[in-house]
Amino acid sequence: MTKTVYGVGVGPGDPGLLTMRAVEVLGLVDVIATPAARWDLGSLALEIARPHLPPACAVEKLELPMTEDRETLARAWDDAALRLADHARAGRSAAFITLGDSTLYSTWSYIAASLARLAADVPLETVPGVTAMAACAVAAGEPLAVGREPLLIWPASPPADADRLLDLAPNVVFMKAGRHLAGLASLVEGGECSATAVRRAGQSAAAITHDLREWVDDRDYFTTVLVRRDEGKGGRT
Amino acid sequence: MTKTVYGVGVGPGDPGLLTMRAVEVLGLVDVIATPAARWDLGSLALEIARPHLPPACAVEKLELPMTEDRETLARAWDDAALRLADHARAGRSAAFITLGDSTLYSTWSYIAASLARLAADVPLETVPGVTAMAACAVAAGEPLAVGREPLLIWPASPPADADRLLDLAPNVVFMKAGRHLAGLASLVEGGECSATAVRRAGQSAAAITHDLREWVDDRDYFTTVLVRRDEGKGGRT
Repeated sequence: MTKTVYGVGVGPGDPGLLTMRAVEVLGLVDVIATPAARWDLGSLALEIARPHLPPACAVEKLELPMTEDRETLARAWDDAALRLADHARAGRSAAFITLGDSTLYSTWSYIAASLARLAADVPLETVPGVTAMAACAVAAGEPLAVGREPLLIWPASPPADADRLLDLAPNVVFMKAGRHLAGLASLVEGGECSATAVRRAGQSAAAITHDLREWVDDRDYFTTVLVRRDEGKGGRT
Repeated sequence: MTKTVYGVGVGPGDPGLLTMRAVEVLGLVDVIATPAARWDLGSLALEIARPHLPPACAVEKLELPMTEDRETLARAWDDAALRLADHARAGRSAAFITLGDSTLYSTWSYIAASLARLAADVPLETVPGVTAMAACAVAAGEPLAVGREPLLIWPASPPADADRLLDLAPNVVFMKAGRHLAGLASLVEGGECSATAVRRAGQSAAAITHDLREWVDDRDYFTTVLVRRDEGKGGRT
């Protein structure tokens, strides 16, 4: 009988932020899948999942290259999907684990799309998780957004005219911002907003600063910057 | 000894999407706090929390009026904060519960700000949760965003020129959109984007449609619309 392939968001890093459904799924799967590249770096997602896995659970390291080449990526996602489908069709349930939320900037989305296209007979379940940015907000001691304020999440390099983003949305989350702190510091020094940088929120090495220039040389990949437009320009509602 | 006041996000509605930390906190508190207005409607957050509460846990119904008046609201948040602080100072830990994530569009953010201002001696802990929009994405079978695509979350009435939002961010989540489905349907019929409406995701009465006009007359408050710009105008990265 064909089993299910799960895409499980394990939350931002704090093991307590796993959901009950995630714990339940991790406790029943025969195979746990995680990208090989991140495995070599010591997979944080796997560390979070491990205490909940059955003793006999196999680890499947998926080759998901860190490249920008679309064709290479598309082939890697398809290959990963087919490996997971093979497990499911052989009666082995499998969980692909992802940090944060499996519906937001997760490799799971690509693999799920490949599975739907190439292995429509295999049942899928996406288990959402707590986002990394929620852990950043907790660390910063401020909300991501309140009331009727739009929130913009910006996972790429900030544009040169980043102030126009704040005209649209009084709250902007810049993800993977470690290489862009000088530009964001200039934005804040422009005077119409404030910012908090959070590093590795929800992990044991978490840190925050309100002075972005402090971290300019660190270029830490897991740095998130929460920018909020000042009250005078719109304010909290 | 002064106890802690917790702000606990209980997730989008599915009891399995509670985090382990939320379950732990709910299991130890002396007081559970929830808005009185929503209590009368049958508090979904309380239903999710209830199986985890200690038998002797007291329910504190907070008067948080459904109004737009800023002064009335500010007074209600301060009053709620002071009631929770009174419990904590009397040695009773208290949890304010909120659907979804306690860092995103949650009344907890206002109460936490009042507590920090009026009762700085009382320890606070914010327990983030799975967002309602993540449950919408799961129900819709599509991600909120992938790769380097910005994501815009719009909790207010959509602007007349909503297409400009899609120029900035290829993914827009319109929350509480039940009254705005006709306008959003026109946006989709403009031809450069597609949309999925999701109602009460993560709850037992969840439903989705790709034809927004189907629900125009329902005006359901808990309707979320996920709009995605078509591939031709930028596409998934």
